[in-house]
Amino acid sequence: MPELRRDPIAGRWVAIATERARRPESFRAYPRSESEEAEAVRCPFCPADGPETEPELLAYRPPGGQPNDNTWTLRVLANKYPAFMMNDTTPLSRRGIYESTSGRGAHEVIIYTRHHNHDLALTAPEEAIDLVRAMRDRMYEHVRHPRIEYVSIFCNHGREAGASLRHPHCQVLAVPVLPNQIVDELREAGYYHDTRAQCLFCAMLKQELDELTRIVWQNDAFVAFCPWASHAPFETWIMPRRHVARFENILHDEIPQLGAALREVLARLYFGLDDPPFNFFVHTAPSRRDVSRYYHWHLEIHPRLAQPAGFELSTGVTINTMAPEQAAAYLRSVWPDIPEAPMDVVPEPVFR
Amino acid sequence: MPELRRDPIAGRWVAIATERARRPESFRAYPRSESEEAEAVRCPFCPADGPETEPELLAYRPPGGQPNDNTWTLRVLANKYPAFMMNDTTPLSRRGIYESTSGRGAHEVIIYTRHHNHDLALTAPEEAIDLVRAMRDRMYEHVRHPRIEYVSIFCNHGREAGASLRHPHCQVLAVPVLPNQIVDELREAGYYHDTRAQCLFCAMLKQELDELTRIVWQNDAFVAFCPWASHAPFETWIMPRRHVARFENILHDEIPQLGAALREVLARLYFGLDDPPFNFFVHTAPSRRDVSRYYHWHLEIHPRLAQPAGFELSTGVTINTMAPEQAAAYLRSVWPDIPEAPMDVVPEPVFR
Repeated sequence: MPELRRDPIAGRWVAIATERARRPESFRAYPRSESEEAEAVRCPFCPADGPETEPELLAYRPPGGQPNDNTWTLRVLANKYPAFMMNDTTPLSRRGIYESTSGRGAHEVIIYTRHHNHDLALTAPEEAIDLVRAMRDRMYEHVRHPRIEYVSIFCNHGREAGASLRHPHCQVLAVPVLPNQIVDELREAGYYHDTRAQCLFCAMLKQELDELTRIVWQNDAFVAFCPWASHAPFETWIMPRRHVARFENILHDEIPQLGAALREVLARLYFGLDDPPFNFFVHTAPSRRDVSRYYHWHLEIHPRLAQPAGFELSTGVTINTMAPEQAAAYLRSVWPDIPEAPMDVVPEPVFR
Repeated sequence: MPELRRDPIAGRWVAIATERARRPESFRAYPRSESEEAEAVRCPFCPADGPETEPELLAYRPPGGQPNDNTWTLRVLANKYPAFMMNDTTPLSRRGIYESTSGRGAHEVIIYTRHHNHDLALTAPEEAIDLVRAMRDRMYEHVRHPRIEYVSIFCNHGREAGASLRHPHCQVLAVPVLPNQIVDELREAGYYHDTRAQCLFCAMLKQELDELTRIVWQNDAFVAFCPWASHAPFETWIMPRRHVARFENILHDEIPQLGAALREVLARLYFGLDDPPFNFFVHTAPSRRDVSRYYHWHLEIHPRLAQPAGFELSTGVTINTMAPEQAAAYLRSVWPDIPEAPMDVVPEPVFR
């Protein structure tokens, strides 16, 4: 069973997921997860010839389709190598300075396209919109569970970003502890709200829209910008204009707007940086706390173009060689070079 | 000039080091720092044919040598692409929610061997001992500077660990802010000391020596173990038995013992995992604070065999597929397989 251990020195949680373990010898020559892909005689995420064998947790399909048939346009499956499992009942344990708890939770994949090579940057607008809708649906499902403290939704694209399968997909991890990174954000945002009586994220959005230099793109509901203290070159955040703590409370009308913003930013990265590896993820409020006054969900996109080294690992301070002002100016300028062919609709940039 | 920006959301510092910048287009096809190595017609760290042209900040050489001649066995140079510079005088600035300060500090390289391919795992014991001595000497130099808050010493080995040059070396970064990771350790260790009146690290060492399952190796002064909440597969810490907060206060007699422990652990990783990429770094007390009662310096070795993906980036929680108990058992078992040839002296393991 997966086990969550609290690092007593750094005060962070680590998931020891031995279900995913390899033998020590297999770490030689760093095979990483390439074996997983090589082993797949056929891509496990491409549509089956007949009925699907993996049971779906959620699926969207055109009218007339049946559950688990192969007409789906989007499918959510349980991860075959889960880092967290709902049936784990190991209790919290303490032994001297060490404290651990069960890895109770859920680990799912969202397969948001039938097409093996159809990256979100190039996809039809409908697929991006359906992805956002599925993210909302799965988030809504998991936050209600009484033992889940946090639900993380993220995407790994490219080997350097930790993706083990080529077929585009996102992942959902529902975990029984509050992650350290979210604790940090809640501390800063809570302190700001306590002392200034306003939302730190709303203040950031206002300042970004005043200064304009780091804005990449915007529409009625969302603003995409390279954050002032970017940790990674070309890091881009997509933030809702409306103050709302929980991602699952996204409004019906905001869903296509987030799909458009995500597709827009990813297309600029794709064409501007030649399909870089990246991760994106949602930062949202913890499941079981009311932080609605001071937290504000957002989506972060982190291209993986620089390798963190000893200094970053040791200190948590990142050395970023690309000023976000320069990154944003470049991403704004990319648009005219983008070929129109692979895009189904070319949205008009609102801001230049 | 480098600029330190405080991420207002996560509460962490980022160094925007535009001196090291490339043009946005150059991020295409992820060249990373391979260009740096390709550009070097000759290795900049190998001994020169005549006198050295880069002025040395510190060097060890056999009797009879002169400053900056090529008879050195260890040299410390200023980094050619510094992330921090001592002559930076940009003051702390605040603009709305954004706060930044100058990247005042120092960035040096310790070239601890004349030999281009002489990894620490395979090196003569004297080179490992000299490296420890130079780390102590440079740490001692920088902690006295009134504007330096923290001195980080680390090593990057292999491209996957962020090394841009093959010739073995370590780096020293003296920075004007207290890094977030050290703040976290001080918080946990301070709280433990406040509530239990003892050092958290001493308690950890005692528990590890009681449980034995995660011990890799030990000598009179140091214990090497895979920490209970390891973030990385085969992560190994080397901790002094003696309670002491500051690395630069290492005793004369402890220096060769640390050299032996470092070489011993790195050799087990080298032979057991086929020369994996790794980082190691010292965690020591902040320069300008007295935390002597509750902090305890240590050295961490992090093999880079797993790629952090979206979940790790998003939450700070690591999924580690290798239980530290299994990693330690494997590293203990590696020894009999190590060929004796490349080692000058084979130290006897004290513990099995």
